[in-house]
Amino acid sequence: MKLEQLQTPALVADRAILNANMRAMMAMLEGKTLRLRPHYKSNKCAAIAHKQMELGAVGITCAKLEEAEDLIDAGVTDVLIANQVVDPLKIRRLAELAGMCRLTVCVDDGENAEALSKAACEAGTTIHVLVEFEIGMERCGVADPDLYVALARKVSTLQNLVYDGIQAYAGHVSHMASDEERRSYTDENAARLRSLIELLKHNGIEVHTLSGGSTGTSRIKAEQGLYTELQAGSYLFMDSTYRALGNLPFRNSLFLLTTVVSKRGALTILDAGVKSLGVDQNEPIFLTMDGEEIKVDHMAVNEEHCKLFSPDHDLSLGDHVLIVPGHCCSTVNLHDRLYLFENGEVVDRLAITARGKSR
Amino acid sequence: MKLEQLQTPALVADRAILNANMRAMMAMLEGKTLRLRPHYKSNKCAAIAHKQMELGAVGITCAKLEEAEDLIDAGVTDVLIANQVVDPLKIRRLAELAGMCRLTVCVDDGENAEALSKAACEAGTTIHVLVEFEIGMERCGVADPDLYVALARKVSTLQNLVYDGIQAYAGHVSHMASDEERRSYTDENAARLRSLIELLKHNGIEVHTLSGGSTGTSRIKAEQGLYTELQAGSYLFMDSTYRALGNLPFRNSLFLLTTVVSKRGALTILDAGVKSLGVDQNEPIFLTMDGEEIKVDHMAVNEEHCKLFSPDHDLSLGDHVLIVPGHCCSTVNLHDRLYLFENGEVVDRLAITARGKSR
Repeated sequence: MKLEQLQTPALVADRAILNANMRAMMAMLEGKTLRLRPHYKSNKCAAIAHKQMELGAVGITCAKLEEAEDLIDAGVTDVLIANQVVDPLKIRRLAELAGMCRLTVCVDDGENAEALSKAACEAGTTIHVLVEFEIGMERCGVADPDLYVALARKVSTLQNLVYDGIQAYAGHVSHMASDEERRSYTDENAARLRSLIELLKHNGIEVHTLSGGSTGTSRIKAEQGLYTELQAGSYLFMDSTYRALGNLPFRNSLFLLTTVVSKRGALTILDAGVKSLGVDQNEPIFLTMDGEEIKVDHMAVNEEHCKLFSPDHDLSLGDHVLIVPGHCCSTVNLHDRLYLFENGEVVDRLAITARGKSR
Repeated sequence: MKLEQLQTPALVADRAILNANMRAMMAMLEGKTLRLRPHYKSNKCAAIAHKQMELGAVGITCAKLEEAEDLIDAGVTDVLIANQVVDPLKIRRLAELAGMCRLTVCVDDGENAEALSKAACEAGTTIHVLVEFEIGMERCGVADPDLYVALARKVSTLQNLVYDGIQAYAGHVSHMASDEERRSYTDENAARLRSLIELLKHNGIEVHTLSGGSTGTSRIKAEQGLYTELQAGSYLFMDSTYRALGNLPFRNSLFLLTTVVSKRGALTILDAGVKSLGVDQNEPIFLTMDGEEIKVDHMAVNEEHCKLFSPDHDLSLGDHVLIVPGHCCSTVNLHDRLYLFENGEVVDRLAITARGKSR
């Protein structure tokens, strides 16, 4: 079956590039102390998580309990929920799941840690814990080093919890345009983390794991040698946002295949909009089926349409256009299926098993 | 079961307000020539489409062939696809579906009309057609009145097609802030449409149907008496964008139920982001469980988190927050289930049967 024979809009990935991206990541980490714990939020396909494990990932990172359930249900043996879980029912479920795999969760609150400990005791399981350190993203985590030490100590003493180390995710650094800027922020954060680790040691608390990082800071973190785990996810697919950074060894493998459904002069209308394309980051990029970029004067993404004003380009009704999404993670979450293609032929279809699993 | 016992994030709707919105729409149209053909894109629940038909809708509007299939599969008898369908396989499927209900599709191209006619002949069915007129939104449709007449004539003469009239959707008017502005644009468009209808009549082509409009222009169109069908969809749920207009007889019924998962000073983190909340229009609004608006200094919607900086508000870990989405249509499309509640109790759960059906 040819790629153009798929009903559109269809989420498709170039299998050769996808595989090359996976290999490039493992090559980047070779000989380093940094291990890959790729983030499930970007692909949400159990089949891809297994492939990442085969290639040497130490485990999988995910954002939500439902994603962890999906991974565990698919036989993944080491899962980190890189977020806080506070709902009582969710905590009970998490404690049960901890009996099915090595399960780690993030904590930034003492009462939450107590609730996790209680549930783990009741379930007769062990929950691994990373206490989250707020590293400038202004989101979850403990920002004050002394409060951090107090919480880490508390976690260490609570029954059926194991304090493994630090979660520190600086997502805001990942998309900084210049490599120098990303490097300088990452160095700054590393200094804060080193003194935190020192303070913890001084208090008799050992840090086995320092987990975080993203595609944007992967090379810097690999060279730096401080983090033990890298949570990159987008390196598989890339998107127009990461493409703009330009200095990563990963190429765009993910596209939305669309059809021209209306044409009037320089205006071209495609059959895909925000219901099949994540629009929470950069604008998408439009390519012909030959991979040539379609220069657009301006564009808009409506609910079920993209509007391209492209006076220089001659697109016809029924033509296909490949869209490089602005954000791969939010785009994947809109689809149930990911088609893999090679040399213009559809070669596989993966179920996006964790699509919509945000609970 | 109490609303707060739902696992979050959960999409919920106040049943009493939802029902009141449906009644308010029928009351607005009572005694007018404008009939309701509500848009499925906003709710994507077969159960709601049936309720709308029961209350007097003449049929349902949808955006995509897959949505039409969902409606027809659920026994809806009169469906308009308010878009162009150009893919050959889709056209064949559309021609088959036209044998299962009264099915109408939009056309803005002569060759596309020919392909539809050929498929309908082969399937032995009749496809109803609205030729789309471009009314200022700069999207699909024929913009030139003479070209419009030529295409309408062509459709009229093609076998197994019936020219029913005009699709004219001015979506850009729907969200204009002032009632006067919406009224003035709607009047301007009406003048263009009246002269088009005149020109068609002069050429012996009768216009039975003039379909279009939205929640934002519903009252104006009802009073104007020119359109025969109103394609409003958001009136069921409303959102922060429509709420800002302030002069519609509809109230917010749709909310995303979320939980506070992290708290640090004035910063509150909720467990829902762009993967469960449409962010293609206005910012969301945050409410306590009592419906009181939470004043925020600033906010951000990340992938799986909302960050609220709200120094004046005392939210605690585990508290629930109701979010009024910025855009109801793109939010609904992220969920598989819509919970209905009344007086704080969950009273029903509707399947969002057309979630993700963008093909």
